[in-house]
Amino acid sequence: MTTAQAPYKLYYWPVPFRGHFIRFVLAYLEITWEEETDPDTIAELKMLPCPEQPVPFMAPPLLCDREHNFHVNQLQAIMGYLGRKHGLMPDDPVLAALTDKVLGDCGDVLEELTCNCGEAMWSPVGWADFSGKRLPRWMQIFEELGRRHGLSKNAGTLLGTPSLSLADLATAALWHPMCETLPGFSDLLQQEAPLISALTQRVVQIPQIEGLLQQQHTRLGKVYCGGEIEKSIRLMLDTEGLKCNPQGGS
Amino acid sequence: MTTAQAPYKLYYWPVPFRGHFIRFVLAYLEITWEEETDPDTIAELKMLPCPEQPVPFMAPPLLCDREHNFHVNQLQAIMGYLGRKHGLMPDDPVLAALTDKVLGDCGDVLEELTCNCGEAMWSPVGWADFSGKRLPRWMQIFEELGRRHGLSKNAGTLLGTPSLSLADLATAALWHPMCETLPGFSDLLQQEAPLISALTQRVVQIPQIEGLLQQQHTRLGKVYCGGEIEKSIRLMLDTEGLKCNPQGGS
Repeated sequence: MTTAQAPYKLYYWPVPFRGHFIRFVLAYLEITWEEETDPDTIAELKMLPCPEQPVPFMAPPLLCDREHNFHVNQLQAIMGYLGRKHGLMPDDPVLAALTDKVLGDCGDVLEELTCNCGEAMWSPVGWADFSGKRLPRWMQIFEELGRRHGLSKNAGTLLGTPSLSLADLATAALWHPMCETLPGFSDLLQQEAPLISALTQRVVQIPQIEGLLQQQHTRLGKVYCGGEIEKSIRLMLDTEGLKCNPQGGS
Repeated sequence: MTTAQAPYKLYYWPVPFRGHFIRFVLAYLEITWEEETDPDTIAELKMLPCPEQPVPFMAPPLLCDREHNFHVNQLQAIMGYLGRKHGLMPDDPVLAALTDKVLGDCGDVLEELTCNCGEAMWSPVGWADFSGKRLPRWMQIFEELGRRHGLSKNAGTLLGTPSLSLADLATAALWHPMCETLPGFSDLLQQEAPLISALTQRVVQIPQIEGLLQQQHTRLGKVYCGGEIEKSIRLMLDTEGLKCNPQGGS
Protein backbone atom coordinates (compact mmCIF):
# COMPACT_ATOMS: atom_id res chain seq x y z
CA MET A 1 0.00 0.00 0.00
CA THR A 2 1.43 3.36 -0.97
CA THR A 3 0.67 6.31 1.28
CA ALA A 4 -1.17 7.94 -1.58
CA GLN A 5 -3.73 5.14 -1.55
CA ALA A 6 -6.55 4.79 0.93
CA PRO A 7 -6.52 1.38 2.65
CA TYR A 8 -10.01 0.54 1.36
CA LYS A 9 -11.89 1.06 -1.86
CA LEU A 10 -15.68 0.84 -1.88
CA TYR A 11 -17.64 0.19 -5.07
CA TYR A 12 -21.23 1.31 -4.64
CA TRP A 13 -23.93 3.36 -6.30
CA PRO A 14 -24.05 7.04 -5.31
CA VAL A 15 -26.86 6.54 -2.76
CA PRO A 16 -27.07 5.86 1.00
CA PHE A 17 -28.99 2.53 1.20
CA ARG A 18 -26.48 -0.32 1.68
CA GLY A 19 -23.51 1.98 1.15
CA HIS A 20 -24.03 3.95 4.35
CA PHE A 21 -23.53 0.85 6.50
CA ILE A 22 -19.97 0.57 5.26
CA ARG A 23 -19.41 4.33 5.22
CA PHE A 24 -20.61 4.61 8.83
CA VAL A 25 -18.13 1.94 9.96
CA LEU A 26 -15.15 3.38 8.10
CA ALA A 27 -15.95 6.96 9.14
CA TYR A 28 -16.43 5.90 12.77
CA LEU A 29 -13.04 4.18 12.70
CA GLU A 30 -11.51 7.28 11.07
CA ILE A 31 -10.20 5.14 8.24
CA THR A 32 -9.97 6.77 4.83
CA TRP A 33 -11.41 5.06 1.82
CA GLU A 34 -11.68 5.67 -1.87
CA GLU A 35 -15.08 5.36 -3.44
CA GLU A 36 -16.08 4.30 -6.93
CA THR A 37 -19.65 5.50 -7.46
CA ASP A 38 -19.77 5.93 -11.21
CA PRO A 39 -22.80 3.88 -12.27
CA ASP A 40 -21.27 2.92 -15.63
CA THR A 41 -18.04 1.69 -14.07
CA ILE A 42 -19.92 -0.28 -11.43
CA ALA A 43 -22.35 -1.73 -13.97
CA GLU A 44 -19.41 -2.81 -16.14
CA LEU A 45 -17.69 -4.54 -13.21
CA LYS A 46 -20.93 -6.24 -12.24
CA MET A 47 -21.48 -7.56 -15.78
CA LEU A 48 -17.97 -8.91 -16.36
CA PRO A 49 -17.70 -12.66 -16.85
CA CYS A 50 -17.08 -14.15 -13.39
CA PRO A 51 -13.49 -15.22 -14.18
CA GLU A 52 -12.63 -11.56 -14.86
CA GLN A 53 -14.19 -10.15 -11.69
CA PRO A 54 -11.98 -9.36 -8.68
CA VAL A 55 -14.26 -11.71 -6.76
CA PRO A 56 -17.15 -13.45 -8.52
CA PHE A 57 -20.19 -11.43 -7.46
CA MET A 58 -23.71 -10.42 -8.48
CA ALA A 59 -24.12 -6.90 -7.14
CA PRO A 60 -22.41 -4.16 -5.14
CA PRO A 61 -21.46 -3.17 -2.47
CA LEU A 62 -18.00 -4.54 -3.13
CA LEU A 63 -15.07 -3.69 -0.85
CA CYS A 64 -11.37 -3.97 -1.59
CA ASP A 65 -8.95 -4.23 1.33
CA ARG A 66 -5.84 -3.02 -0.44
CA GLU A 67 -3.43 -4.23 2.24
CA HIS A 68 -4.43 -7.82 1.49
CA ASN A 69 -5.60 -7.25 -2.10
CA PHE A 70 -8.82 -8.83 -0.92
CA HIS A 71 -12.20 -8.13 -2.50
CA VAL A 72 -15.49 -9.16 -0.96
CA ASN A 73 -19.13 -8.43 -1.69
CA GLN A 74 -22.34 -9.00 0.35
CA LEU A 75 -23.03 -6.30 2.93
CA GLN A 76 -23.04 -8.70 5.86
CA ALA A 77 -19.69 -10.19 4.85
CA ILE A 78 -18.13 -6.74 4.43
CA MET A 79 -19.48 -5.57 7.78
CA GLY A 80 -18.29 -8.72 9.55
CA TYR A 81 -14.86 -8.46 7.97
CA LEU A 82 -14.42 -4.81 8.97
CA GLY A 83 -15.94 -5.41 12.39
CA ARG A 84 -13.62 -8.30 13.22
CA LYS A 85 -10.55 -6.59 11.81
CA HIS A 86 -11.11 -3.33 13.65
CA GLY A 87 -12.54 -4.46 16.99
CA LEU A 88 -16.21 -3.67 16.39
CA MET A 89 -17.47 -7.28 16.52
CA PRO A 90 -18.10 -8.53 20.08
CA ASP A 91 -15.85 -11.44 21.12
CA ASP A 92 -18.68 -13.16 22.96
CA PRO A 93 -20.17 -15.76 20.55
CA VAL A 94 -23.73 -14.97 21.61
CA LEU A 95 -23.30 -11.24 20.96
CA ALA A 96 -21.48 -11.97 17.71
CA ALA A 97 -24.43 -14.12 16.58
CA LEU A 98 -26.86 -11.38 17.61
CA THR A 99 -24.78 -8.91 15.61
CA ASP A 100 -25.18 -11.15 12.58
CA LYS A 101 -28.90 -11.37 13.34
CA VAL A 102 -29.11 -7.56 13.41
CA LEU A 103 -27.25 -7.36 10.09
CA GLY A 104 -29.64 -9.93 8.63
CA ASP A 105 -32.65 -8.03 9.94
CA CYS A 106 -31.25 -4.81 8.44
CA GLY A 107 -30.87 -6.54 5.10
CA ASP A 108 -34.46 -7.79 5.23
CA VAL A 109 -35.81 -4.31 6.00
CA LEU A 110 -33.87 -2.85 3.07
CA GLU A 111 -35.17 -5.56 0.75
CA GLU A 112 -38.76 -5.18 1.89
CA LEU A 113 -38.83 -1.40 1.66
CA THR A 114 -37.48 -1.54 -1.88
CA CYS A 115 -39.48 -4.59 -3.11
CA ASN A 116 -36.26 -6.59 -3.43
CA CYS A 117 -34.24 -3.66 -4.79
CA GLY A 118 -36.84 -2.63 -7.32
CA GLU A 119 -37.85 -6.02 -8.73
CA ALA A 120 -41.43 -4.82 -8.42
CA MET A 121 -43.03 -1.44 -7.75
CA TRP A 122 -45.31 -0.72 -4.80
CA SER A 123 -49.09 -1.14 -5.02
CA PRO A 124 -51.34 0.63 -2.50
CA VAL A 125 -52.44 -2.74 -1.06
CA GLY A 126 -48.87 -3.97 -0.61
CA TRP A 127 -47.79 -0.62 0.80
CA ALA A 128 -50.64 -0.60 3.36
CA ASP A 129 -49.54 -3.99 4.67
CA PHE A 130 -45.88 -3.01 4.75
CA SER A 131 -46.20 0.47 6.21
CA GLY A 132 -49.01 -0.38 8.61
CA LYS A 133 -47.83 -3.78 9.84
CA ARG A 134 -44.42 -5.03 8.82
CA LEU A 135 -42.48 -1.78 9.09
CA PRO A 136 -43.73 -1.03 12.63
CA ARG A 137 -43.03 -4.65 13.52
CA TRP A 138 -39.44 -4.33 12.29
CA MET A 139 -39.02 -1.23 14.42
CA GLN A 140 -40.41 -3.06 17.44
CA ILE A 141 -37.99 -5.93 16.85
CA PHE A 142 -35.02 -3.56 17.10
CA GLU A 143 -36.59 -1.78 20.09
CA GLU A 144 -37.11 -4.97 22.05
CA LEU A 145 -33.61 -6.25 21.33
CA GLY A 146 -32.17 -2.99 22.68
CA ARG A 147 -34.50 -2.98 25.68
CA ARG A 148 -33.38 -6.48 26.67
CA HIS A 149 -29.77 -5.31 26.60
CA GLY A 150 -30.26 -2.27 28.80
CA LEU A 151 -30.64 0.36 26.09
CA SER A 152 -32.20 3.54 27.49
CA LYS A 153 -33.26 6.90 26.09
CA ASN A 154 -29.99 8.54 27.07
CA ALA A 155 -27.43 5.77 27.16
CA GLY A 156 -26.56 2.21 26.34
CA THR A 157 -26.04 0.19 23.18
CA LEU A 158 -28.17 -2.22 21.20
CA LEU A 159 -26.48 -5.34 22.58
CA GLY A 160 -25.30 -3.93 25.90
CA THR A 161 -21.66 -3.67 24.84
CA PRO A 162 -19.64 -1.14 26.86
CA SER A 163 -18.96 0.92 23.74
CA LEU A 164 -20.58 1.15 20.33
CA SER A 165 -20.26 -1.95 18.20
CA LEU A 166 -21.15 -3.01 14.68
CA ALA A 167 -24.77 -3.57 15.74
CA ASP A 168 -25.17 0.09 16.78
CA LEU A 169 -23.58 1.45 13.64
CA ALA A 170 -25.73 -0.85 11.49
CA THR A 171 -28.87 0.17 13.36
CA ALA A 172 -28.15 3.85 12.79
CA ALA A 173 -27.16 3.22 9.16
CA LEU A 174 -30.48 1.45 8.64
CA TRP A 175 -32.86 3.94 10.24
CA HIS A 176 -31.16 7.30 9.86
CA PRO A 177 -31.14 7.55 6.04
CA MET A 178 -34.81 6.53 5.92
CA CYS A 179 -35.76 9.04 8.60
CA GLU A 180 -33.73 11.78 6.93
CA THR A 181 -34.99 11.33 3.40
CA LEU A 182 -38.46 9.74 3.54
CA PRO A 183 -41.33 11.79 5.02
CA GLY A 184 -43.01 10.29 8.10
CA PHE A 185 -40.39 7.65 8.90
CA SER A 186 -38.86 9.68 11.69
CA ASP A 187 -42.21 10.05 13.48
CA LEU A 188 -43.00 6.39 13.02
CA LEU A 189 -39.64 5.30 14.43
CA GLN A 190 -40.08 7.68 17.36
CA GLN A 191 -43.50 6.15 18.00
CA GLU A 192 -42.69 2.47 17.57
CA ALA A 193 -39.09 2.41 18.76
CA PRO A 194 -38.19 5.44 20.88
CA LEU A 195 -35.02 3.82 22.25
CA ILE A 196 -33.81 3.05 18.72
CA SER A 197 -34.67 6.55 17.59
CA ALA A 198 -32.57 7.95 20.45
CA LEU A 199 -29.68 5.53 19.80
CA THR A 200 -29.70 6.48 16.13
CA GLN A 201 -29.51 10.15 17.09
CA ARG A 202 -26.59 9.49 19.43
CA VAL A 203 -24.71 7.66 16.67
CA VAL A 204 -25.24 10.33 14.02
CA GLN A 205 -24.08 13.02 16.45
CA ILE A 206 -20.66 11.43 16.76
CA PRO A 207 -18.41 14.01 15.06
CA GLN A 208 -16.98 11.68 12.43
CA ILE A 209 -20.45 10.36 11.47
CA GLU A 210 -21.87 13.88 11.49
CA GLY A 211 -19.03 14.94 9.19
CA LEU A 212 -19.71 12.01 6.88
CA LEU A 213 -23.40 12.83 6.67
CA GLN A 214 -22.76 16.49 5.87
CA GLN A 215 -20.33 15.55 3.15
CA GLN A 216 -22.68 12.90 1.73
CA HIS A 217 -25.63 15.26 1.87
CA THR A 218 -23.71 17.80 -0.21
CA ARG A 219 -22.66 15.10 -2.65
CA LEU A 220 -25.87 13.07 -2.92
CA GLY A 221 -28.69 15.39 -1.87
CA LYS A 222 -31.88 13.88 -0.46
CA VAL A 223 -31.70 10.56 -2.29
CA TYR A 224 -32.39 7.32 -0.42
CA CYS A 225 -32.02 4.27 -2.64
CA GLY A 226 -32.48 5.92 -6.04
CA GLY A 227 -34.01 4.49 -9.20
CA GLU A 228 -37.61 3.76 -10.08
CA ILE A 229 -38.23 2.13 -6.71
CA GLU A 230 -37.48 5.35 -4.82
CA LYS A 231 -40.05 7.08 -7.03
CA SER A 232 -42.51 4.31 -6.19
CA ILE A 233 -41.86 4.67 -2.43
CA ARG A 234 -42.29 8.45 -2.66
CA LEU A 235 -45.49 8.07 -4.67
CA MET A 236 -46.86 5.84 -1.91
CA LEU A 237 -45.79 8.31 0.77
CA ASP A 238 -47.48 11.15 -1.16
CA THR A 239 -50.71 9.32 -1.88
CA GLU A 240 -51.06 6.76 0.90
CA GLY A 241 -48.69 8.01 3.60
CA LEU A 242 -47.51 5.90 6.50
CA LYS A 243 -50.32 4.26 8.41
CA CYS A 244 -49.05 5.83 11.61
CA ASN A 245 -51.19 5.11 14.65
CA PRO A 246 -50.62 7.83 17.26
CA GLN A 247 -52.05 5.58 20.00
CA GLY A 248 -49.11 3.24 19.47
CA GLY A 249 -49.30 -0.53 19.36
CA SER A 250 -49.88 -2.58 16.26
CA MET B 1 -29.56 -29.66 29.73
CA THR B 2 -31.06 -33.00 30.63
CA THR B 3 -29.90 -36.02 28.69
CA ALA B 4 -33.45 -36.44 27.40
CA GLN B 5 -33.18 -33.12 25.59
CA ALA B 6 -31.35 -32.56 22.35
CA PRO B 7 -28.79 -29.72 22.61
CA TYR B 8 -30.54 -27.71 19.89
CA LYS B 9 -34.12 -27.02 18.92
CA LEU B 10 -34.90 -25.77 15.42
CA TYR B 11 -38.14 -23.98 14.62
CA TYR B 12 -38.83 -24.13 10.91
CA TRP B 13 -41.54 -24.97 8.42
CA PRO B 14 -41.65 -28.61 7.25
CA VAL B 15 -39.74 -27.90 4.00
CA PRO B 16 -36.08 -27.99 2.90
CA PHE B 17 -35.41 -24.38 1.76
CA ARG B 18 -33.63 -22.48 4.56
CA GLY B 19 -34.10 -25.34 7.01
CA HIS B 20 -31.75 -27.72 5.20
CA PHE B 21 -28.78 -25.39 5.72
CA ILE B 22 -29.08 -25.86 9.47
CA ARG B 23 -30.04 -29.52 9.20
CA PHE B 24 -26.99 -30.22 7.00
CA VAL B 25 -24.66 -28.61 9.57
CA LEU B 26 -26.14 -30.39 12.59
CA ALA B 27 -26.31 -33.74 10.78
CA TYR B 28 -22.71 -33.39 9.54
CA LEU B 29 -21.58 -32.67 13.10
CA GLU B 30 -23.61 -35.66 14.34
CA ILE B 31 -25.40 -33.43 16.81
CA THR B 32 -28.98 -34.31 17.64
CA TRP B 33 -31.65 -31.67 17.49
CA GLU B 34 -35.35 -31.41 18.15
CA GLU B 35 -37.48 -29.86 15.47
CA GLU B 36 -40.67 -27.87 15.75
CA THR B 37 -42.27 -27.90 12.31
CA ASP B 38 -45.94 -27.50 13.15
CA PRO B 39 -47.04 -24.53 11.03
CA ASP B 40 -49.59 -23.34 13.60
CA THR B 41 -47.10 -23.40 16.46
CA ILE B 42 -44.49 -21.57 14.37
CA ALA B 43 -47.00 -19.01 13.11
CA GLU B 44 -48.09 -18.38 16.68
CA LEU B 45 -44.51 -17.82 17.86
CA LYS B 46 -43.84 -15.53 14.90
CA MET B 47 -46.92 -13.40 15.65
CA LEU B 48 -46.33 -12.99 19.40
CA PRO B 49 -45.71 -9.43 20.57
CA CYS B 50 -41.93 -8.93 20.48
CA PRO B 51 -41.57 -8.73 24.29
CA GLU B 52 -43.02 -12.25 24.51
CA GLN B 53 -40.78 -13.82 21.86
CA PRO B 54 -37.68 -15.79 22.92
CA VAL B 55 -35.73 -13.36 20.74
CA PRO B 56 -37.56 -10.58 18.90
CA PHE B 57 -37.80 -11.86 15.33
CA MET B 58 -39.80 -11.64 12.11
CA ALA B 59 -39.59 -15.11 10.62
CA PRO B 60 -38.07 -18.56 11.08
CA PRO B 61 -35.65 -20.32 11.01
CA LEU B 62 -35.12 -19.84 14.72
CA LEU B 63 -32.58 -21.91 16.65
CA CYS B 64 -32.37 -22.49 20.38
CA ASP B 65 -29.03 -23.51 21.88
CA ARG B 66 -30.35 -25.14 25.04
CA GLU B 67 -26.98 -25.23 26.80
CA HIS B 68 -26.92 -21.42 26.83
CA ASN B 69 -30.70 -20.88 26.63
CA PHE B 70 -29.86 -18.77 23.60
CA HIS B 71 -32.28 -18.18 20.73
CA VAL B 72 -31.27 -16.63 17.44
CA ASN B 73 -32.96 -16.17 14.07
CA GLN B 74 -31.61 -15.19 10.62
CA LEU B 75 -30.07 -18.07 8.68
CA GLN B 76 -26.67 -16.43 8.35
CA ALA B 77 -26.49 -15.73 12.08
CA ILE B 78 -27.48 -19.31 12.93
CA MET B 79 -24.95 -20.74 10.49
CA GLY B 80 -22.17 -18.47 11.77
CA TYR B 81 -22.97 -19.32 15.37
CA LEU B 82 -22.93 -23.08 14.73
CA GLY B 83 -19.89 -22.80 12.48
CA ARG B 84 -17.81 -20.91 15.02
CA LYS B 85 -18.95 -23.06 17.93
CA HIS B 86 -18.23 -26.34 16.20
CA GLY B 87 -15.12 -25.59 14.16
CA LEU B 88 -16.69 -25.22 10.72
CA MET B 89 -15.86 -21.51 10.27
CA PRO B 90 -12.32 -20.92 8.94
CA ASP B 91 -10.05 -19.02 11.37
CA ASP B 92 -8.50 -17.00 8.56
CA PRO B 93 -10.38 -13.66 8.38
CA VAL B 94 -10.39 -13.66 4.58
CA LEU B 95 -11.89 -17.15 4.40
CA ALA B 96 -14.35 -16.27 7.17
CA ALA B 97 -15.47 -13.23 5.17
CA LEU B 98 -15.79 -15.35 2.03
CA THR B 99 -17.87 -17.81 4.03
CA ASP B 100 -20.20 -14.95 4.98
CA LYS B 101 -20.24 -13.91 1.31
CA VAL B 102 -21.26 -17.44 0.30
CA LEU B 103 -24.01 -17.45 2.94
CA GLY B 104 -25.20 -14.06 1.64
CA ASP B 105 -25.17 -15.31 -1.94
CA CYS B 106 -27.14 -18.41 -0.89
CA GLY B 107 -29.71 -16.17 0.78
CA ASP B 108 -30.04 -14.07 -2.36
CA VAL B 109 -30.57 -17.12 -4.56
CA LEU B 110 -33.29 -18.41 -2.21
CA GLU B 111 -35.00 -15.01 -2.22
CA GLU B 112 -34.82 -14.64 -5.99
CA LEU B 113 -36.07 -18.11 -6.78
CA THR B 114 -39.07 -17.60 -4.50
CA CYS B 115 -39.82 -13.95 -5.37
CA ASN B 116 -38.87 -12.88 -1.86
CA CYS B 117 -40.50 -15.90 -0.19
CA GLY B 118 -43.73 -15.61 -2.14
CA GLU B 119 -44.36 -11.87 -1.97
CA ALA B 120 -45.16 -12.09 -5.67
CA MET B 121 -45.82 -14.97 -8.07
CA TRP B 122 -43.74 -15.64 -11.18
CA SER B 123 -44.68 -14.17 -14.55
CA PRO B 124 -43.29 -15.74 -17.74
CA VAL B 125 -41.27 -12.58 -18.46
CA GLY B 126 -39.71 -12.48 -15.00
CA TRP B 127 -39.07 -16.22 -15.10
CA ALA B 128 -37.32 -16.00 -18.48
CA ASP B 129 -34.93 -13.40 -17.10
CA PHE B 130 -34.31 -15.33 -13.90
CA SER B 131 -33.96 -18.81 -15.35
CA GLY B 132 -32.11 -17.73 -18.48
CA LYS B 133 -29.74 -15.15 -17.00
CA ARG B 134 -29.62 -14.68 -13.26
CA LEU B 135 -29.83 -18.32 -12.20
CA PRO B 136 -26.99 -19.42 -14.53
CA ARG B 137 -25.00 -16.39 -13.35
CA TRP B 138 -25.46 -17.42 -9.72
CA MET B 139 -24.23 -20.89 -10.59
CA GLN B 140 -21.19 -19.43 -12.36
CA ILE B 141 -20.42 -17.25 -9.31
CA PHE B 142 -20.20 -20.34 -7.10
CA GLU B 143 -18.22 -22.22 -9.78
CA GLU B 144 -15.62 -19.48 -10.16
CA LEU B 145 -15.19 -19.11 -6.41
CA GLY B 146 -14.49 -22.82 -6.12
CA ARG B 147 -12.19 -22.83 -9.15
CA ARG B 148 -10.06 -20.07 -7.64
CA HIS B 149 -9.65 -22.11 -4.48
CA GLY B 150 -8.55 -25.29 -6.20
CA LEU B 151 -11.87 -27.10 -6.35
CA SER B 152 -11.77 -29.95 -8.86
CA LYS B 153 -14.21 -32.52 -10.16
CA ASN B 154 -13.03 -35.16 -7.73
CA ALA B 155 -11.64 -33.27 -4.77
CA GLY B 156 -11.24 -29.99 -2.99
CA THR B 157 -13.53 -27.60 -1.17
CA LEU B 158 -15.21 -24.33 -2.12
CA LEU B 159 -12.68 -22.17 -0.27
CA GLY B 160 -9.69 -24.49 -0.40
CA THR B 161 -9.97 -25.50 3.25
CA PRO B 162 -8.30 -28.84 4.05
CA SER B 163 -11.65 -30.30 5.12
CA LEU B 164 -15.26 -29.38 4.53
CA SER B 165 -16.35 -26.11 6.09
CA LEU B 166 -19.56 -24.15 6.46
CA ALA B 167 -19.21 -22.87 2.89
CA ASP B 168 -19.32 -26.39 1.44
CA LEU B 169 -22.29 -27.46 3.55
CA ALA B 170 -24.14 -24.26 2.61
CA THR B 171 -23.35 -24.75 -1.09
CA ALA B 172 -24.74 -28.28 -1.01
CA ALA B 173 -27.75 -27.21 1.07
CA LEU B 174 -28.48 -24.52 -1.52
CA TRP B 175 -28.19 -26.53 -4.71
CA HIS B 176 -29.08 -30.09 -3.71
CA PRO B 177 -32.72 -29.53 -2.67
CA MET B 178 -33.37 -27.53 -5.87
CA CYS B 179 -31.75 -30.22 -8.04
CA GLU B 180 -33.62 -32.98 -6.24
CA THR B 181 -37.09 -31.47 -6.33
CA LEU B 182 -37.27 -29.06 -9.30
CA PRO B 183 -37.07 -30.51 -12.84
CA GLY B 184 -34.16 -29.29 -14.94
CA PHE B 185 -32.10 -27.70 -12.16
CA SER B 186 -29.71 -30.60 -11.93
CA ASP B 187 -28.88 -30.42 -15.66
CA LEU B 188 -28.48 -26.65 -15.52
CA LEU B 189 -26.12 -26.86 -12.53
CA GLN B 190 -24.12 -29.58 -14.27
CA GLN B 191 -23.85 -27.34 -17.34
CA GLU B 192 -23.07 -24.01 -15.67
CA ALA B 193 -21.15 -25.19 -12.63
CA PRO B 194 -19.80 -28.73 -13.02
CA LEU B 195 -17.38 -28.36 -10.09
CA ILE B 196 -20.20 -27.22 -7.80
CA SER B 197 -22.40 -30.04 -9.03
CA ALA B 198 -19.64 -32.52 -8.16
CA LEU B 199 -18.96 -30.90 -4.76
CA THR B 200 -22.66 -31.02 -3.95
CA GLN B 201 -22.72 -34.72 -4.81
CA ARG B 202 -19.70 -35.39 -2.59
CA VAL B 203 -21.37 -33.60 0.33
CA VAL B 204 -24.70 -35.41 0.02
CA GLN B 205 -22.90 -38.76 -0.14
CA ILE B 206 -21.41 -38.26 3.31
CA PRO B 207 -23.22 -40.94 5.36
CA GLN B 208 -24.74 -38.58 7.91
CA ILE B 209 -26.05 -36.20 5.21
CA GLU B 210 -27.29 -39.12 3.15
CA GLY B 211 -29.11 -40.41 6.23
CA LEU B 212 -30.63 -36.99 6.86
CA LEU B 213 -31.87 -36.72 3.29
CA GLN B 214 -33.46 -40.16 3.35
CA GLN B 215 -35.23 -39.38 6.60
CA GLN B 216 -36.35 -35.94 5.33
CA HIS B 217 -37.52 -37.37 2.03
CA THR B 218 -39.73 -39.86 3.89
CA ARG B 219 -41.07 -37.10 6.11
CA LEU B 220 -41.46 -34.26 3.61
CA GLY B 221 -41.71 -35.90 0.18
CA LYS B 222 -40.70 -33.91 -2.89
CA VAL B 223 -41.47 -30.46 -1.49
CA TYR B 224 -38.97 -27.62 -2.00
CA CYS B 225 -40.15 -24.39 -0.36
CA GLY B 226 -43.89 -25.09 -0.21
CA GLY B 227 -46.78 -22.68 -0.45
CA GLU B 228 -48.21 -20.84 -3.41
CA ILE B 229 -44.74 -19.83 -4.58
CA GLU B 230 -43.69 -23.45 -5.10
CA LYS B 231 -46.79 -23.93 -7.25
CA SER B 232 -45.79 -20.83 -9.21
CA ILE B 233 -42.23 -22.12 -9.74
CA ARG B 234 -43.58 -25.52 -10.87
CA LEU B 235 -46.05 -23.86 -13.21
CA MET B 236 -43.18 -21.96 -14.81
CA LEU B 237 -41.11 -25.14 -15.07
CA ASP B 238 -44.05 -26.94 -16.70
CA THR B 239 -44.94 -24.19 -19.14
CA GLU B 240 -41.70 -22.29 -19.71
CA GLY B 241 -39.00 -24.67 -18.51
CA LEU B 242 -35.45 -23.62 -17.79
CA LYS B 243 -33.83 -21.72 -20.61
CA CYS B 244 -30.98 -24.20 -20.66
CA ASN B 245 -28.42 -23.53 -23.37
CA PRO B 246 -26.53 -26.73 -24.14
CA GLN B 247 -23.71 -24.72 -25.77
CA GLY B 248 -22.94 -23.19 -22.37
CA GLY B 249 -22.22 -19.52 -21.82
CA SER B 250 -24.77 -16.92 -20.90
